[in-house]
Amino acid sequence: MTPDKEFVLDARRDERVRLSEAVFCAGKSAAQISAIIDYAMTRGLGLLLTRLDEARLAGLPPHQQEALDYDPVSRTAICGQPHPIRGETRIAVVTAGTSDVPVAREAVRTLLFEGFAAEEIVDVGVAGLWRLLRRAEELQRFPVVIVAAGMDAALPSVIGGLVGGLVIAVPTSVGYGVAAGGQTALNAILASCAPGIVTVNIDNGYGAACAAMRALGGRVAKEGDQDGTS
Amino acid sequence: MTPDKEFVLDARRDERVRLSEAVFCAGKSAAQISAIIDYAMTRGLGLLLTRLDEARLAGLPPHQQEALDYDPVSRTAICGQPHPIRGETRIAVVTAGTSDVPVAREAVRTLLFEGFAAEEIVDVGVAGLWRLLRRAEELQRFPVVIVAAGMDAALPSVIGGLVGGLVIAVPTSVGYGVAAGGQTALNAILASCAPGIVTVNIDNGYGAACAAMRALGGRVAKEGDQDGTS
Amino acid sequence: MTPDKEFVLDARRDERVRLSEAVFCAGKSAAQISAIIDYAMTRGLGLLLTRLDEARLAGLPPHQQEALDYDPVSRTAICGQPHPIRGETRIAVVTAGTSDVPVAREAVRTLLFEGFAAEEIVDVGVAGLWRLLRRAEELQRFPVVIVAAGMDAALPSVIGGLVGGLVIAVPTSVGYGVAAGGQTALNAILASCAPGIVTVNIDNGYGAACAAMRALGGRVAKEGDQDGTS
Amino acid sequence: MTPDKEFVLDARRDERVRLSEAVFCAGKSAAQISAIIDYAMTRGLGLLLTRLDEARLAGLPPHQQEALDYDPVSRTAICGQPHPIRGETRIAVVTAGTSDVPVAREAVRTLLFEGFAAEEIVDVGVAGLWRLLRRAEELQRFPVVIVAAGMDAALPSVIGGLVGGLVIAVPTSVGYGVAAGGQTALNAILASCAPGIVTVNIDNGYGAACAAMRALGGRVAKEGDQDGTS
Amino acid sequence: MTPDKEFVLDARRDERVRLSEAVFCAGKSAAQISAIIDYAMTRGLGLLLTRLDEARLAGLPPHQQEALDYDPVSRTAICGQPHPIRGETRIAVVTAGTSDVPVAREAVRTLLFEGFAAEEIVDVGVAGLWRLLRRAEELQRFPVVIVAAGMDAALPSVIGGLVGGLVIAVPTSVGYGVAAGGQTALNAILASCAPGIVTVNIDNGYGAACAAMRALGGRVAKEGDQDGTS
Amino acid sequence: MTPDKEFVLDARRDERVRLSEAVFCAGKSAAQISAIIDYAMTRGLGLLLTRLDEARLAGLPPHQQEALDYDPVSRTAICGQPHPIRGETRIAVVTAGTSDVPVAREAVRTLLFEGFAAEEIVDVGVAGLWRLLRRAEELQRFPVVIVAAGMDAALPSVIGGLVGGLVIAVPTSVGYGVAAGGQTALNAILASCAPGIVTVNIDNGYGAACAAMRALGGRVAKEGDQDGTS
Amino acid sequence: MTPDKEFVLDARRDERVRLSEAVFCAGKSAAQISAIIDYAMTRGLGLLLTRLDEARLAGLPPHQQEALDYDPVSRTAICGQPHPIRGETRIAVVTAGTSDVPVAREAVRTLLFEGFAAEEIVDVGVAGLWRLLRRAEELQRFPVVIVAAGMDAALPSVIGGLVGGLVIAVPTSVGYGVAAGGQTALNAILASCAPGIVTVNIDNGYGAACAAMRALGGRVAKEGDQDGTS
Amino acid sequence: MTPDKEFVLDARRDERVRLSEAVFCAGKSAAQISAIIDYAMTRGLGLLLTRLDEARLAGLPPHQQEALDYDPVSRTAICGQPHPIRGETRIAVVTAGTSDVPVAREAVRTLLFEGFAAEEIVDVGVAGLWRLLRRAEELQRFPVVIVAAGMDAALPSVIGGLVGGLVIAVPTSVGYGVAAGGQTALNAILASCAPGIVTVNIDNGYGAACAAMRALGGRVAKEGDQDGTS
Repeated sequence: MTPDKEFVLDARRDERVRLSEAVFCAGKSAAQISAIIDYAMTRGLGLLLTRLDEARLAGLPPHQQEALDYDPVSRTAICGQPHPIRGETRIAVVTAGTSDVPVAREAVRTLLFEGFAAEEIVDVGVAGLWRLLRRAEELQRFPVVIVAAGMDAALPSVIGGLVGGLVIAVPTSVGYGVAAGGQTALNAILASCAPGIVTVNIDNGYGAACAAMRALGGRVAKEGDQDGTS
Repeated sequence: MTPDKEFVLDARRDERVRLSEAVFCAGKSAAQISAIIDYAMTRGLGLLLTRLDEARLAGLPPHQQEALDYDPVSRTAICGQPHPIRGETRIAVVTAGTSDVPVAREAVRTLLFEGFAAEEIVDVGVAGLWRLLRRAEELQRFPVVIVAAGMDAALPSVIGGLVGGLVIAVPTSVGYGVAAGGQTALNAILASCAPGIVTVNIDNGYGAACAAMRALGGRVAKEGDQDGTS
Repeated sequence: MTPDKEFVLDARRDERVRLSEAVFCAGKSAAQISAIIDYAMTRGLGLLLTRLDEARLAGLPPHQQEALDYDPVSRTAICGQPHPIRGETRIAVVTAGTSDVPVAREAVRTLLFEGFAAEEIVDVGVAGLWRLLRRAEELQRFPVVIVAAGMDAALPSVIGGLVGGLVIAVPTSVGYGVAAGGQTALNAILASCAPGIVTVNIDNGYGAACAAMRALGGRVAKEGDQDGTS
Repeated sequence: MTPDKEFVLDARRDERVRLSEAVFCAGKSAAQISAIIDYAMTRGLGLLLTRLDEARLAGLPPHQQEALDYDPVSRTAICGQPHPIRGETRIAVVTAGTSDVPVAREAVRTLLFEGFAAEEIVDVGVAGLWRLLRRAEELQRFPVVIVAAGMDAALPSVIGGLVGGLVIAVPTSVGYGVAAGGQTALNAILASCAPGIVTVNIDNGYGAACAAMRALGGRVAKEGDQDGTS
Repeated sequence: MTPDKEFVLDARRDERVRLSEAVFCAGKSAAQISAIIDYAMTRGLGLLLTRLDEARLAGLPPHQQEALDYDPVSRTAICGQPHPIRGETRIAVVTAGTSDVPVAREAVRTLLFEGFAAEEIVDVGVAGLWRLLRRAEELQRFPVVIVAAGMDAALPSVIGGLVGGLVIAVPTSVGYGVAAGGQTALNAILASCAPGIVTVNIDNGYGAACAAMRALGGRVAKEGDQDGTS
Repeated sequence: MTPDKEFVLDARRDERVRLSEAVFCAGKSAAQISAIIDYAMTRGLGLLLTRLDEARLAGLPPHQQEALDYDPVSRTAICGQPHPIRGETRIAVVTAGTSDVPVAREAVRTLLFEGFAAEEIVDVGVAGLWRLLRRAEELQRFPVVIVAAGMDAALPSVIGGLVGGLVIAVPTSVGYGVAAGGQTALNAILASCAPGIVTVNIDNGYGAACAAMRALGGRVAKEGDQDGTS
Repeated sequence: MTPDKEFVLDARRDERVRLSEAVFCAGKSAAQISAIIDYAMTRGLGLLLTRLDEARLAGLPPHQQEALDYDPVSRTAICGQPHPIRGETRIAVVTAGTSDVPVAREAVRTLLFEGFAAEEIVDVGVAGLWRLLRRAEELQRFPVVIVAAGMDAALPSVIGGLVGGLVIAVPTSVGYGVAAGGQTALNAILASCAPGIVTVNIDNGYGAACAAMRALGGRVAKEGDQDGTS
Repeated sequence: MTPDKEFVLDARRDERVRLSEAVFCAGKSAAQISAIIDYAMTRGLGLLLTRLDEARLAGLPPHQQEALDYDPVSRTAICGQPHPIRGETRIAVVTAGTSDVPVAREAVRTLLFEGFAAEEIVDVGVAGLWRLLRRAEELQRFPVVIVAAGMDAALPSVIGGLVGGLVIAVPTSVGYGVAAGGQTALNAILASCAPGIVTVNIDNGYGAACAAMRALGGRVAKEGDQDGTS
């Protein structure tokens, strides 16, 4: 069996769901990833690679490594040109603590790849409430707020009570013991007393960004963006 | 201690997060619920009551029972006038099976209370894929699609691959054995292979509706809706 | 076997751990409970009964029912005279929502039985942060704050960041779906980002009160309380 | 104790359940595996080795390494001659994504060892439904379809609604967070809304292949295959 | 909303997956079930109703109750004529203990509805191994063996080592404590040391029967059964 | 199908494992239980019925109810004559609290049925250590000690450190919240720091008694007991 | 993004909750930790670093390594001067076994950093009860007792029954199998039969120390400590 | 703090529970283990070390390594002289598969250390029932049978139905996926349909051996063994 047979890029996804192709690298060998990059580069397709750790990156052929725009914090790589930035910044990406930054950055990079700028607001966890409150007014101006939080994930609940926009919480695997790799953060978000908070899988910054673009997508179309992508 | 002391209605929630007050009745006694209704009726506040089963309803004073617009399928009651419908229908509420209808209806009723009409599309579970495919084009026209599904909850994944709008999945407690009261449906949604699906707590039709309104809220404002509520 | 053989009251507990005898009624038959009350009444021992639902209460002999000071909200009964109130109020008992009141009241009643007055502060959940913030300064004056919260239990984290006293969180079984009968609230409290929050079993208002008294006990002794009980 | 004492090859399994001996290597030391291979080679018995990672392979004596037909993707090795292929291909092995290939390949290799050819159909996950639909008719021709899928494992449900043959789903450990090492995929398959889907343990490509052969076994006999093995 | 809107019978399922329509009644109201029966009776469609407890049955209109062939042990009802029996009996349905009979009977009734006779073999759990061993030879003659077992579910493993046909295990919710409503039986089956055992959801006798028919289906077609149903 | 077909009493169990037949009634209908009693009474077989609640008991024919020696605390019934008491008392049955008595009594009744007298020692939980310590010497004289304990089940660990005989712990479902129906007690026992504690399923007093008899059985044989039963 | 942006030290925490800043290092890179240390050293702030393993320590610049007071057993480092010891020793830190020492030491080091001396009492697990009993009287003199215990964590229950002070249990991840990384110890503590035991997250020696200081804090103030820190 | 302070050997355990001191090495550093060995060697105490992997062994001083009788399969070491063998062999140690041997061997070595010889019977898992049946008669002669089994752990149930002695099952962590590190094996054993099976923690061969000796202890005493150890 040739490596070619092991994947079928979903080239029509863009027109259907208005999101470009992304490749989740954690479960794939360097050879599999390399074949996919090669396929995309040959055809001039843009590609976002997520969960690409430095060991796997080092396993790619040098010309591929050079062609990638790699960010070690979020472990993402962009192959090809990102979409040009579309208008004003309408998405905030908030983190509870320093350890949540890699997940938040994955969201920021995904948005960047699709042409959405995001405002990062870091280290505003509820244990020191004043850090959040002084930025509350600013947060209320964003139609979409992504919040990355681990441990007890109290932050999305508090933000959900402060702002009226869509709050997309990303539970992170930060914590130990009963934090259970993010399961407690996830459950706390789902059981939130603040109405209308939504969530995605643990550490899934990419998914949160996709959801944000889905939420903003229709509006962009109304405003006259004709490229059909978002 | 007087019952008055047991609650503090969040009267400023409306201006902050642009959602009216709702009361989750499952954990409350008829006396507690009655006190809250009395408080709202006296002040002319609108109120949505969720998880109000018929036993608790029967425990309310007759004049309160009469004043409520009660729906037995969703176990919701509306106290006071719902918000007038705001423009065209932009939210679809989809169910995988007949047993998911109560949860979907809770979302529809919540939307109605806030002035958003919703299109219900029932019984399009993936085991009979043709039922869904013949409605795919219709679904692609909605900026927000709420999907209520229990058991394996494969439907949100499939819809997520078919439409570009925001997909808010509501796992339901439908099923038995490993369905585990909706936990499997929830996990399947969170682990979905379709990018950008978001979710809420099991059976939380109310929360899905709130999230839909959060997502549409900003857009409405841009279009000139000045009442500040949505 | 006579019912007598089925229990051995720990009459020396008072002098050892400075807490009076309490009887957890949930797993016991009316006959077993009645035998214990009889034993205590005969000997003039004070007794706190917890988790005594109205059905079991109705199963007791009339003279016992009359002798009990029963509170239906907390499902507690006091047999015999409570300890006289000891000095100023040093314990606050805070609830996130109306549904948490029964658990909080169990703590208040336990404290009352042992002679500690408590200040109840209700319905200050974080989804409406202003309700809490306006009482923050008041909370900072208590050396011990008991916080009963269900669902995502974000409240103890926020309070833990606002006050310097001992924060004893009681997760409650309020909520549905992933709230999992209080397990999520418990885990969120344990994984809290606020330092030094402690907790007890789900719905264990009695245990929180005991812990509060243990924490205050030594101090009371220093102040000259000589009765050896607290 | 000599290593000989540590195993008893089930030499009569073939005549009883019509499946040859297979050795699961994950929990065994290189010395234990080597002793078993030696035993089989000496007696001319065929042997399938599963979960034989490259480190353990390297720990075997060179002459054994050479004698094995090793496949690194599925981490399987065949010792001795596989059974000649029996007639037409009646089993399809389908994968949802590239990361599911190792598990699917374990099934293919097991079938090959016993003389059953299989058709591999890769990367047809439901997020891009058109990839599956264009192969639906082809799938309907197989009496047995093995489907390897991780994450939310929506694929077996969809295939179960499209084909009438036996669908044996193999949940894979592909995914992260709530995917929980394949537990969510497994539960989603078991809770499937499509009737009559069966499953095996997570990542158990070997077991799925054995089940397929059990299902086809009787039929083969009817067609006149007299060797008694399948 | 009329009840009509709440379901869409999958009338084309028969030709696609060769299984008739079945209705899982546990999550449905008597009114919903009645509407479905009415729909089927009007059109002359056969219908299998599962998990129809006696309370819900009593809630149906008298003429519907009379028209149903109801079995209280399995809580199944057949509406309309079952398919005529197709040839010889090729399916055995085995139970470990008396308490597993309701689940086994659901499988037998489902098979009967579709025209497959089954041989029931009861109470052969492994704690009294001789009860099983004396029937081993008989079991080896069936191409498909369904095994319903709860508690530790050791029986499918033992049968899997004794017979060469397809073994479809149905974990049952029989047991207490760690039996966990069938979860332990399910896990034990999935972790079975006997190769090629497959399984379905807990208590899912219906699903096991459907799987058995899927396994036998292709063969039937080859033998010239032209009715397209099995 | 006649009820006869639904069970096969394991009449040879006595000679094989030296334990008489017992019937677990929780999962069986009154009709099934009655048929089994009838079968045993007709043949003069002794029978122990466990988990026979009063509702099911009331569903048996009057002559069967009268023939049974029923104990409501343990919910056990003995049909026929128990075995005469064999020699001195060598088994102690200890309970941590009053609520554990029903489980302990199930063990005592099982032992009684087979001819073993047991010494009951109640309400010696570790929270009041002196209650246990004053009986430590007494406990050291028993070759087998059964300990029923719920909640945190600290008692078996402490007893395991005090006595040299076989300690068979029975976790009970006493407790709430994280006690999780006995799962925490079970896990605490299994993780005990005292060496050589063994355990059985939650609330399984019957199993603990059987294990005690297995442990004493061989010794009895040596002492010349020829009846083959124990 | 500069590293500066990734954290916001909570400089006002000291005056609010009277605890100095601590940094949990497990989820942070050496670069992130180094930036925080640099920030604190530049400003002369004291800093406690927890979960700083030797690998991360080695990744810090040499001048930072030298400036830290590092303890390998507890994996804690103190940056800057600890607070001078405040009066007599009022906290005991007890361990069940040798393997619990690292967690207990984390508590001792945290207390030391804030100026509280602690008495360590090691290896008094209940399997050898005499080791504990001979120190019972000593333990009764402490107003706060921290108890670190893994496996079945029976020790806090026993101590809770022996002393009247505040018992803060720290479940540790010591143990294997069902010990489940400390989950069983945690649950056993929460389900304890001794009244008023409180707990923190698994292995959270730091949190237990903070709770101890919160409990003692108010008292210290009363005694005239004017520095506002504890 | 000196390492001395970190442990207190339970030197009186022998006379109390008649078992010598054993040290569980998994959670301890080489330095801690070395200090304990040194303490025991100096005083001439016998010591059994369990879970001593080869890395930790290599970390001990050479003279200690030489003094130990180390077995790499069970990862146990004996320090000092084992007790002389006591009479005939009365314990059988049975394994389901080759991978269960390390756990079984830990039991054998523990027994050996205390002077009990054991008969090992390997690889008799139920998937090949004939391997077990041909040894059934032999097994019936042992008063105690230890059975180590992983995966579905069906073997103890089957043996429990075949023999009348005490059956101590040891679930092993052998298996993958739902085997869940031995949790499924453990639960299957606890839910066993065979009466009177007891169990210990996962992989706890040491505990099973201790339980066996507890069970045999009393009998030994009766036979006149006066050394007080077993």
